Amino acid sequence: MIPAPYLLYLGSSSDFVGIKTSRGLATFRPEDCVGEFRHDDCPLTLKLPRLSLQEGVAAGARTLVLGIANSGGTMEQRLIEDAVAALDAGLNVAAGLHQRLRDQPRLVASAEERGLQLFDVRDPPANLRVGNGYRRAGNRLLTVGTDCSVGKMYATIALARALQERGVAADFRATGQTGILIAGEGVAVDAVVADFISGAIEQLAPERHDDGWDLIEGQGSLFHPSFAGVSTGLLHGAQPEAIVLCHDPNRTHMRGIPGRSLPGLSECLSENLRVASLTSPDVRAVGVCLNTSGMEAAEARRLCGRTEDLLGIPCTDPMAFGVDALIDNLLCLAPSQPSTAASR
Amino acid sequence: MIPAPYLLYLGSSSDFVGIKTSRGLATFRPEDCVGEFRHDDCPLTLKLPRLSLQEGVAAGARTLVLGIANSGGTMEQRLIEDAVAALDAGLNVAAGLHQRLRDQPRLVASAEERGLQLFDVRDPPANLRVGNGYRRAGNRLLTVGTDCSVGKMYATIALARALQERGVAADFRATGQTGILIAGEGVAVDAVVADFISGAIEQLAPERHDDGWDLIEGQGSLFHPSFAGVSTGLLHGAQPEAIVLCHDPNRTHMRGIPGRSLPGLSECLSENLRVASLTSPDVRAVGVCLNTSGMEAAEARRLCGRTEDLLGIPCTDPMAFGVDALIDNLLCLAPSQPSTAASR
Repeated sequence: MIPAPYLLYLGSSSDFVGIKTSRGLATFRPEDCVGEFRHDDCPLTLKLPRLSLQEGVAAGARTLVLGIANSGGTMEQRLIEDAVAALDAGLNVAAGLHQRLRDQPRLVASAEERGLQLFDVRDPPANLRVGNGYRRAGNRLLTVGTDCSVGKMYATIALARALQERGVAADFRATGQTGILIAGEGVAVDAVVADFISGAIEQLAPERHDDGWDLIEGQGSLFHPSFAGVSTGLLHGAQPEAIVLCHDPNRTHMRGIPGRSLPGLSECLSENLRVASLTSPDVRAVGVCLNTSGMEAAEARRLCGRTEDLLGIPCTDPMAFGVDALIDNLLCLAPSQPSTAASR
Repeated sequence: MIPAPYLLYLGSSSDFVGIKTSRGLATFRPEDCVGEFRHDDCPLTLKLPRLSLQEGVAAGARTLVLGIANSGGTMEQRLIEDAVAALDAGLNVAAGLHQRLRDQPRLVASAEERGLQLFDVRDPPANLRVGNGYRRAGNRLLTVGTDCSVGKMYATIALARALQERGVAADFRATGQTGILIAGEGVAVDAVVADFISGAIEQLAPERHDDGWDLIEGQGSLFHPSFAGVSTGLLHGAQPEAIVLCHDPNRTHMRGIPGRSLPGLSECLSENLRVASLTSPDVRAVGVCLNTSGMEAAEARRLCGRTEDLLGIPCTDPMAFGVDALIDNLLCLAPSQPSTAASR
């Protein structure tokens, strides 16, 4: 396990989505985050105390989390310099990039000399097997998306916590670096060897017999030309009986691909159901989660209502309005409280 | 480059499909294959001289090709022992398994001591980028399949050679270990990190401006629960203007998944066109290739004819009947000779 508390790295990032790993930790494990580290040219903040590395150590931080990501997961020179400085200051260093800390000789030597640790959370587990798609016991829900970074992890965690609050056994199954840092375990499915995508998810969410749920974090999008292979294998490995569609209504083009428009919600939902049906013939859509963080609450509620009317399933912003209507639908209950549509 | 000529390893395999790498080399580079190495319990043969390792060396072999595969690509103990013996006999060793020769300390030490080489042809290239799906110049054809190991590589090579015979610039782009051994280059797309599937194919078949064709070897199947992620990324990265559907009419279930039936040809074709259209909106199907090696010629021709009637595109067995009708369709020519349907 990665020693907490954490100092969260923003570096020089000016990409709000690119700091999602640091932000995810600040959101879901605030008690473990002592502050944020950013350079003067970084216009972003997580609204945590801005601390130098030394101040972070003084505040109790044990690990600097390099919680930034770029498409392709490369490691910039400045990031490496900052990691060296963190080790010098006495911090362990964790990262979730495709390029690995352990492949940087300066970091390895420095960590060894100081008795500190490097954590590459994207390392896949050893001995993965290929998937087989055989029907397995248990209840599984997978979040899917119109695009990358549209709130699938937030939705998944919110659903897991809501089930737990209702006394239903439920586990969040992390498939990306942010989720893994939050959950303390998981498989970075985009980092496994391509032949093992579905198999990795079969191992992450194996059969269960306690009537509980595995809530599996989705990745990418079937409509993203960079990552649809990952999304496809994830759907097949998850063998979900339920999917939840996630979407960012403010996204103007597919992430990283200027000029490529997002799919329509209805088209995206039906394509996900089609692909999922290969291993889960009775899969159904139980709801839609929108990231309305850029909107007024009233406008956000109207959009949820219109989306419900369009698709015929509950729609919410999990962070703003909760996920009760989705949980009711998932558990095939009568609505336990006004849905977002009813409360417009 | 891997030093030829080769001694082809069958080991103790009793799986006709599992020796496809050795068989592919024997079929497409017969001039480079001096013989086959198999244990007494191996019921298979490539109809090459059966040679011991020492006899192989005496016949001029410079490399033992461990041309067998199993789902998941693991390396059995007996195979390692045989590789040690090959090095002792003075042979280089090449393999295309997921598990790598270089991760076997005994092999590494022995090769070093003897000045011999180990070749892991499934190693992906360094510095892969994620795909972007932007439209690029050039003519590209991708073979797709109802299942794994149904003849996609054979069809792709046959199409490349047929185009070359007509004076059209054409390159076979290998995506699997057998194809890479035959072509001498390529990318084992099932071995790249999952985020880079489509990007690897964009690099394997970059833009071209000579009016020539890239013939890209397909992998897996959209309907295979183990490998559909790879097939999806391959379709998106290939950005094909043409696809050819490959099928083995004798296959009783999806490879490695007893009980799972194959998709119908029509369903499989339309799903591949649908997925391909994300990056290639005008993609079209130009033909079907059947592996009829288990059939009488007359029966095989009847099956090709029925398939043409069903799907409305040319159908052939590329090894038995050639691919002229497909090439005509690909180049939008009037049929240059009787198609298999006409010659029934």
